[in-house]
Amino acid sequence: MGRPLLPAAPGSPRAGAPGERVDGPPAPRHSPGAVGLVLARPARLLGVEPFFMEFIAGIEERLAEHDLSVLLHVVPHHEAEIAAYRRWAARGLVDAVALVNPTVGDRRPEVLTELGLPAVVVGNPGDGTDLPAVRTDETGPVRDALARLLELGHRRIARVGGPADLLHTVARTRALREGCREAGIEPVVVEGDYSDEAGARLTARLLSAPEPPTAIMYDNDVMAVAGLEAAGAAGVAVPDRLSLLAWDDSPMCRLASPPLTTMSVDVHRFGSLVADTLLELVAGRPATPRESPAARWVRRGSTGPAPAD
Amino acid sequence: MGRPLLPAAPGSPRAGAPGERVDGPPAPRHSPGAVGLVLARPARLLGVEPFFMEFIAGIEERLAEHDLSVLLHVVPHHEAEIAAYRRWAARGLVDAVALVNPTVGDRRPEVLTELGLPAVVVGNPGDGTDLPAVRTDETGPVRDALARLLELGHRRIARVGGPADLLHTVARTRALREGCREAGIEPVVVEGDYSDEAGARLTARLLSAPEPPTAIMYDNDVMAVAGLEAAGAAGVAVPDRLSLLAWDDSPMCRLASPPLTTMSVDVHRFGSLVADTLLELVAGRPATPRESPAARWVRRGSTGPAPAD
Repeated sequence: MGRPLLPAAPGSPRAGAPGERVDGPPAPRHSPGAVGLVLARPARLLGVEPFFMEFIAGIEERLAEHDLSVLLHVVPHHEAEIAAYRRWAARGLVDAVALVNPTVGDRRPEVLTELGLPAVVVGNPGDGTDLPAVRTDETGPVRDALARLLELGHRRIARVGGPADLLHTVARTRALREGCREAGIEPVVVEGDYSDEAGARLTARLLSAPEPPTAIMYDNDVMAVAGLEAAGAAGVAVPDRLSLLAWDDSPMCRLASPPLTTMSVDVHRFGSLVADTLLELVAGRPATPRESPAARWVRRGSTGPAPAD
Repeated sequence: MGRPLLPAAPGSPRAGAPGERVDGPPAPRHSPGAVGLVLARPARLLGVEPFFMEFIAGIEERLAEHDLSVLLHVVPHHEAEIAAYRRWAARGLVDAVALVNPTVGDRRPEVLTELGLPAVVVGNPGDGTDLPAVRTDETGPVRDALARLLELGHRRIARVGGPADLLHTVARTRALREGCREAGIEPVVVEGDYSDEAGARLTARLLSAPEPPTAIMYDNDVMAVAGLEAAGAAGVAVPDRLSLLAWDDSPMCRLASPPLTTMSVDVHRFGSLVADTLLELVAGRPATPRESPAARWVRRGSTGPAPAD
């Protein structure tokens, strides 16, 4: 199960002979006692989307046992994220970082390797990096969700996805297109940014088409809840005329009216698995490959049989 | 408006002659580039309650302009919080800290002063500390909320408060009791912990009393939403038989059915005001006294006239 020992930061007291295992306890006293997490997104989205708070809670729960903190930085784009990594590495501010939202053509893994900053990728990394990762299956859950919608008789299926440059958006889109091709249908996929504003606007647009979808899948919970409101505003009954399926799960999904069926992700567990890998990196140990449980269908009131007409 | 210059950390490059103003730019290059925030609560609550994510988003939005990050640490109690401050001070990990949830007999301000760690109190500090603060009026909004419930004819009023050792819980309870005394009524106040579990349990208990309340005020949004569900489970119609009033505001309140009337707090603004003071402290400048806007009544569907019988 072992991966090669990650290079320790130059000049770090952790640096041993090449290939040497350093089996010290996590968070040695000379370390900063922090792991870094940069979110490249508008700060206003932070307060809206439950995902990252739940994720950070999962990380913190494990780190707190080792007196480690999370150094949290919010930046508008990846250039600023890379600048933060350079600053952190130069000043020795963090022992390791969690890299979130890997993208197509992502430069960040290479920069982190150059900087000698131990890092774990949250989700499935792209080709060309051997950073450790906490992976998760994106294909299976999309296939599963599609199968259930098809069983309910839906043939006009749309998806409000996340940003198209994210690797997990690409993976979900590919799985949806392949599954639909096998079923002899063509999905409509539109790109959102995870905000309630995008969820509302894109849902309204989908519903105003000449042949509107009878089922919409969303790539997070916030867009789905906003989509439910937009359907109500457009006079489209859920689930009688339209089935809605959220992704991730949060109190918002349970408290919506009707409550939202969702592909539920154990975000807290995802965070604690990432923390387990971070703790290994901080201790200079090889990272154990980990996989977070796949999203699973949780049926609530927003999905039903496709309308007959 | 100026307060006395805060003592710089011993040995800090910021330390000038006593009383000397240091008007350098924020985040000088030799600084760690971080402000600390310790939350003393179970990590599982983090993912549930929107307040702190919104608050952190408000802080981050201002700090990011100055390349400062938030060092976030979650601990179970104040002893562990104080230990974190000692560790941070010893290692020079943060330039300043935001102290949240000031309590009765709080030891933390004294420890921070001893450690020479610049700090801002989030909310109204207790007596016996001269730490700078971003204050907010707790009394006025409680008076306002009570007046509106009285106008609607409610005389049996209950409140599901936050932890009783928090200064702002004490202030709200006192304001409620005083206002009720003037109106010739006696409120029922029970203590919650801001969790959905407490909101549900305490609401069920209040509603099973021989003379149940016709209006319940909650000290946050999560307990209110859970209370709404509990009322539904108990067969008590909202707002026909029972009016519910949340505190803070979040998408959950708007998406509940009926949507919750709330004392809305601009949490994002609160965070950015705290960041403004933190930036002053980091620069070694005197802290400007600041006040965050008071909570204001936002009427939605969960409040109505008291039932006639």
